[in-house]
Amino acid sequence: MSEKRKKIIAVIGGSEPSSEEARLAEEVGCELARQGATLVCGGLGGVMEAACRGASAEGGVTIGILPGDSPETANPYVQIPIATSIGYARNIAVVKSAQAVIAIGGSYGTLSEIAHALQSNIPVIGLKTWALSRNGQLDNSIILVQNPVEAVNKALNLAEG
Amino acid sequence: MSEKRKKIIAVIGGSEPSSEEARLAEEVGCELARQGATLVCGGLGGVMEAACRGASAEGGVTIGILPGDSPETANPYVQIPIATSIGYARNIAVVKSAQAVIAIGGSYGTLSEIAHALQSNIPVIGLKTWALSRNGQLDNSIILVQNPVEAVNKALNLAEG
Amino acid sequence: MSEKRKKIIAVIGGSEPSSEEARLAEEVGCELARQGATLVCGGLGGVMEAACRGASAEGGVTIGILPGDSPETANPYVQIPIATSIGYARNIAVVKSAQAVIAIGGSYGTLSEIAHALQSNIPVIGLKTWALSRNGQLDNSIILVQNPVEAVNKALNLAEG
Amino acid sequence: MSEKRKKIIAVIGGSEPSSEEARLAEEVGCELARQGATLVCGGLGGVMEAACRGASAEGGVTIGILPGDSPETANPYVQIPIATSIGYARNIAVVKSAQAVIAIGGSYGTLSEIAHALQSNIPVIGLKTWALSRNGQLDNSIILVQNPVEAVNKALNLAEG
Repeated sequence: MSEKRKKIIAVIGGSEPSSEEARLAEEVGCELARQGATLVCGGLGGVMEAACRGASAEGGVTIGILPGDSPETANPYVQIPIATSIGYARNIAVVKSAQAVIAIGGSYGTLSEIAHALQSNIPVIGLKTWALSRNGQLDNSIILVQNPVEAVNKALNLAEG
Repeated sequence: MSEKRKKIIAVIGGSEPSSEEARLAEEVGCELARQGATLVCGGLGGVMEAACRGASAEGGVTIGILPGDSPETANPYVQIPIATSIGYARNIAVVKSAQAVIAIGGSYGTLSEIAHALQSNIPVIGLKTWALSRNGQLDNSIILVQNPVEAVNKALNLAEG
Repeated sequence: MSEKRKKIIAVIGGSEPSSEEARLAEEVGCELARQGATLVCGGLGGVMEAACRGASAEGGVTIGILPGDSPETANPYVQIPIATSIGYARNIAVVKSAQAVIAIGGSYGTLSEIAHALQSNIPVIGLKTWALSRNGQLDNSIILVQNPVEAVNKALNLAEG
Repeated sequence: MSEKRKKIIAVIGGSEPSSEEARLAEEVGCELARQGATLVCGGLGGVMEAACRGASAEGGVTIGILPGDSPETANPYVQIPIATSIGYARNIAVVKSAQAVIAIGGSYGTLSEIAHALQSNIPVIGLKTWALSRNGQLDNSIILVQNPVEAVNKALNLAEG
């Protein structure tokens, strides 16, 4: 990676989070910005918006990779909107553009992002999110953490470079 | 759906299955063909190839939605190769083109397909595959079955139309 | 290519063709079916529907690679609907799945398909469609023909295999 | 669009430009940065790299929307690499993320981007690039300009917002 590039961390989660999930997402965004990382997300509402709001409040850079074909659909805290026009296939671009992923709550869209990240050997840190087992055996690939600061520290440690 | 269209069922699973998973996939393919359904899959090897081989042996139609940009990359039992050139984003097209999905074993790619199907309210039938829990609660969306015939019967019953 | 696979030819063109373009598309579809080729297209109306109608009338196989996320959006003459959910990015899958492309009329969507085909060295046969020049020099990559039978003969001759 | 967002202009063109095209691209990049616009491109070499180099030299922001699945594949002047993993389908995201497009030289990949932009009513400004005619009639949708400063002025005037 170019030396001048900042680490990019993805924050993923649902568009209809609980109030606690939204609070966690905002704190994750704040902490990413404080530690100088760039935030990438799916660009819409809920966890995505809360994380962008947190990062923006602390002066961080926010990228939103949108499913639709207009930058206008991004939440107001996205500074760099990418309009892919490929629908949920953009979920893959969200995680592939990051060096680590923080998952907060989330439904099946978030699960698809977790799966795509693990398939690409991109570390996934989980806060109150999915747990997986395969053929009766627990899969421990999602790294469970207890709070936003721990999530960000873990993500930055695991991010390549 | 046009009255003349056959039901299309997706078979998903890994490219490096156990011998039992490959056997299950082949039997699922056979049974789909016997019951007059069209099979769609990711077009490559392993579970995908075994299922296509089974369907072909019974005179069924097989569609392979490929990640790469050449129809030549399809397994030899794919009759209709679709070269998407969009990589793993083709996983979404595999499940969206089906009225129901049968998952056999599989790794994170299969998990992403399960997630995309459930996100779209397309029924997922599971044979020795992933199990999910969210925030400590079991998610029972994957319909577990015991054998290929049961898998196909369930899929065809749940397929719309 | 597997010996058992039929040649697949893409027919591309606009969703609001002139009556002459629609007639040409229908005749192209008829002739493809008569010569035993499978037709692939974008699955919607206009030139796509006319070509599928022609092919169906002659007992041919028709594939529609759709931009949306439901097979239901295909025109009624599509036998095998593929729901990609990736919007206009499906234009690339339409041409990459074919061994040759026949373009009839069309607007900018058709132009994008012509460009993607030429970029992949897939032959493009043109009936009353776009002409290109680059930096003041004519680009003769689109093979111009005068009628549907000539278009189909040229496409099948140029299709690999 | 959020008031705080800068205008985003796409620069498109081939990966093997002539030396004059590379010079034009670099000057376009410089001028975009001087006028405070963000540059988006396909993130690879040739025209893309030259434009990013120019923008970086003047302190501008550069986004590279990559076809592959690793941010590492971006040219060294891309500050924000987006790894889409969808191959040439990323061409659509490049133009849809911009409010105007500047095309410099280019081959069929560039032509596909021009087509996708025009299909979405995103203005295309051309420097020594493709010219189009349809069914024997010239299509004047590409706005021809003579030099980089004129290209940037035109693009920023036409960019919405």
